[in-house]
Amino acid sequence: RGKLFLIGGPCVLESETHARTMAAAIHRITSDLGVPYIFKASYDKANRTSIRSYRGPGLVEGCRILAAIAKDTGLPVLTDVHTPEDCPRVSDALGEAELFLQIPAFLCRQTDLLIAAAETGRAINIKKGQFVAPSDMKHAVQKVRDSGNQRVSLCERGASFGYNNLVVDMRSLPIMREYAPVVFDGTHSVQTPSAGDGVSGGQPQFIPVLARAAVAAGVDGVFLEVHDNPAQAKSDGANALHLDNLKGVLEQLLAVHAAVSPR
Amino acid sequence: RGKLFLIGGPCVLESETHARTMAAAIHRITSDLGVPYIFKASYDKANRTSIRSYRGPGLVEGCRILAAIAKDTGLPVLTDVHTPEDCPRVSDALGEAELFLQIPAFLCRQTDLLIAAAETGRAINIKKGQFVAPSDMKHAVQKVRDSGNQRVSLCERGASFGYNNLVVDMRSLPIMREYAPVVFDGTHSVQTPSAGDGVSGGQPQFIPVLARAAVAAGVDGVFLEVHDNPAQAKSDGANALHLDNLKGVLEQLLAVHAAVSPR
Amino acid sequence: RGKLFLIGGPCVLESETHARTMAAAIHRITSDLGVPYIFKASYDKANRTSIRSYRGPGLVEGCRILAAIAKDTGLPVLTDVHTPEDCPRVSDALGEAELFLQIPAFLCRQTDLLIAAAETGRAINIKKGQFVAPSDMKHAVQKVRDSGNQRVSLCERGASFGYNNLVVDMRSLPIMREYAPVVFDGTHSVQTPSAGDGVSGGQPQFIPVLARAAVAAGVDGVFLEVHDNPAQAKSDGANALHLDNLKGVLEQLLAVHAAVSPR
Amino acid sequence: RGKLFLIGGPCVLESETHARTMAAAIHRITSDLGVPYIFKASYDKANRTSIRSYRGPGLVEGCRILAAIAKDTGLPVLTDVHTPEDCPRVSDALGEAELFLQIPAFLCRQTDLLIAAAETGRAINIKKGQFVAPSDMKHAVQKVRDSGNQRVSLCERGASFGYNNLVVDMRSLPIMREYAPVVFDGTHSVQTPSAGDGVSGGQPQFIPVLARAAVAAGVDGVFLEVHDNPAQAKSDGANALHLDNLKGVLEQLLAVHAAVSPR
Repeated sequence: RGKLFLIGGPCVLESETHARTMAAAIHRITSDLGVPYIFKASYDKANRTSIRSYRGPGLVEGCRILAAIAKDTGLPVLTDVHTPEDCPRVSDALGEAELFLQIPAFLCRQTDLLIAAAETGRAINIKKGQFVAPSDMKHAVQKVRDSGNQRVSLCERGASFGYNNLVVDMRSLPIMREYAPVVFDGTHSVQTPSAGDGVSGGQPQFIPVLARAAVAAGVDGVFLEVHDNPAQAKSDGANALHLDNLKGVLEQLLAVHAAVSPR
Repeated sequence: RGKLFLIGGPCVLESETHARTMAAAIHRITSDLGVPYIFKASYDKANRTSIRSYRGPGLVEGCRILAAIAKDTGLPVLTDVHTPEDCPRVSDALGEAELFLQIPAFLCRQTDLLIAAAETGRAINIKKGQFVAPSDMKHAVQKVRDSGNQRVSLCERGASFGYNNLVVDMRSLPIMREYAPVVFDGTHSVQTPSAGDGVSGGQPQFIPVLARAAVAAGVDGVFLEVHDNPAQAKSDGANALHLDNLKGVLEQLLAVHAAVSPR
Repeated sequence: RGKLFLIGGPCVLESETHARTMAAAIHRITSDLGVPYIFKASYDKANRTSIRSYRGPGLVEGCRILAAIAKDTGLPVLTDVHTPEDCPRVSDALGEAELFLQIPAFLCRQTDLLIAAAETGRAINIKKGQFVAPSDMKHAVQKVRDSGNQRVSLCERGASFGYNNLVVDMRSLPIMREYAPVVFDGTHSVQTPSAGDGVSGGQPQFIPVLARAAVAAGVDGVFLEVHDNPAQAKSDGANALHLDNLKGVLEQLLAVHAAVSPR
Repeated sequence: RGKLFLIGGPCVLESETHARTMAAAIHRITSDLGVPYIFKASYDKANRTSIRSYRGPGLVEGCRILAAIAKDTGLPVLTDVHTPEDCPRVSDALGEAELFLQIPAFLCRQTDLLIAAAETGRAINIKKGQFVAPSDMKHAVQKVRDSGNQRVSLCERGASFGYNNLVVDMRSLPIMREYAPVVFDGTHSVQTPSAGDGVSGGQPQFIPVLARAAVAAGVDGVFLEVHDNPAQAKSDGANALHLDNLKGVLEQLLAVHAAVSPR
């Protein structure tokens, strides 16, 4: 097994300054620990529970910020796409940057989106739908591969287990690793989807627990939404990891990863 | 309570001839029984499990067929939309026809899709996601209403209950009826989503059971995918209702509906 | 199909006076409606969430009350058994009365309990465990039949669907009817099992909805815990049907039953 | 955190010779690795799916074998109890041996069983029911403590997640550890409960995955059913760990445990 990598950053681009601050702060921690790092932020939250919630700066401005951060830091960046049309636009806007396109969980079966993302030639990270069996994700991988793109990974973020609750079935990790590299999303996995009041809750106290478990089960990378002030985050603050805790969590994960890696 | 209506037809447009035949056959049955009828067929199956499955004739040709059927029969028609861009195109193509735009279950939280559909002014039928609590559907309804469109209905089609299985929680019907009229989808509710071999299965023997139960619980309409040869259907044949059984099922449903309607 | 019967009464025997009052009140309603009626009450609630909750008068005193009610009213009676030793003791105590022994849902796989109950020769009603697939109940039926007792019925009362929530999968009714007559428990099906505070909640507003749905799907009888003052009930008051609502609910169920019965 | 302990052995006592062989073989491995070891075997499988399956030698003969093994090896032993009456009988039969009484998952809410087990003064291991929320297990612990017995542990073995499938929610481990020490059952967690053919299946390939994950999440001990010939085991062979794999699995678990233990 190789090095455990991190995909991390704020849920949504709140401002260029905030994104740059977060990227720099996380980069410093991952550099110290020798963890390969991909900066993550969304330019649009396209499926908020409520129509009134903040969605982000939009594709054009969001990609400008991402490209600027990529250029200035040399970091790879990852962002979500929501329609086939978005894919070439985002890819073009990021130009020279090393870009990962992410397929949101609800959209993991939308064939045109997967094909359009694949055809950009960028690396694709597909989140497993909360309603999809792990073994069914091989079809999502196949949609990308059949479009001529071999750089595809899968991401576990919990399965619907009753209403307004997600459970991570750790068996999904080895099952999906038969198809592609697997990333564990430790922050959306502790989300408690909208309980009817229009805002999703979260249980950030379980982020280290589930992330350690996933790394022990075996994954290639970890996805964590990190914020310097979760209570004020413009999206998904309830399940974000506080920046102050990132170093400690990563140290735990590296220790577990070392324990399960062949010498 | 008013008359129980039917949304029915083949899953996907297989050919103009087939669609016309199905519409005519179903129309004859519903006319005999006094059931208001909306013809249903998709021009594109955008989330097939496998990239190799049949998807349909596409938006342009599909809408041409739907418009022709609407014109010749006078029937309202319903079809799925998958991206915001689809919505005005479909609405324009259907012109004078009475059109219902349907939001697929996986996409029921995509804000832009709901807004674009709402802004056509057409009636909107939102399928409840397999991962969504009934009470959360009020936010989907609100997204349509806030866009200035009051003609919105909700559709129950089962919730993820373990892998590759759906369960209908009949409590969802009265819960969602507090927000909008509710339709029960009796054929997707008996689907057994892809078990890893790339094709979804079904249990059509339970269609009458669940549909009777839903009508007894209380709904405004019923959605049924009907085919004259399910074994040869190009999509979702495994859970389709055979045309030969439609009359018998509708008679049962009308009897139950009468039993639970105030005199 | 035959007449729809009712198993009904308070969850637990609170006092002889209360039990007699409830039996008489329910009997009056069922007689008026022509519904065959079995009086139900438990002498011991053996699996309360909290050790501090009321459990009942115990086997000896409880059976004395049940026998007295059976004798004075001529009604059949039903009560729960929890260990193999209970079975002959309860059966003997009830003597001439027409007695149904009920196997609680949590205990539906305890082989010795099923055998001991079967060996009394009394009719056996087995509740389906919240963790058991409908098709697995054929093995429970077989345990009774292999013990020489053919009088066995099955009872649906909801399946675990996430934490502290139950969902009724109406498909279970026709599946289990292939093995034995089926009863729908309309009051435990709306229970919300202990959410950590040591008391189970309930949603009695959904009793008529689910009971109508189950009768429309097709059952032989209905089980309802009825109380004249649910707020003060000593067990399961949160999901009990108020006595004042019984007549109305039964009238709805009879109308639905007639609608789905062959003429 | 202390040393990670193992509860292990065959599901059921197949014969004295077999039990002695298994105890010795496992003891050798755990001694080499410095793992505290409790021998586990059941004298009666009281809830087999089918009435025709093997149940064991019974209480008297089973306890004789367990006592003999305890005496000759000095090992603590653990066995299941199923009725209140069993508890003092088993406790008395084991005499001087260090005995753990285990409450089966289906029975974890049976108040009398918990009290009778507690009153023996023996250590109690309560399996979490497949239908119970982790936070509700505090009531089971309280039933034991209120009976004057403070030596109680809880055991995770998966939650019902759809029919015939179990999922381990790793959040349950820290939740339950607030109430008592927690053991992770790595073999029943990979069980696929009876799919209607009267025999439960299993996925032993996931035992190391889930056990590593649980140890990384944080537990006090691990429970593993171990057999030298799973294909011929008289109970639960489909989900047993092969004896040949025990050493390798334990080595992995110790490495993970060390990685997550404070230095």
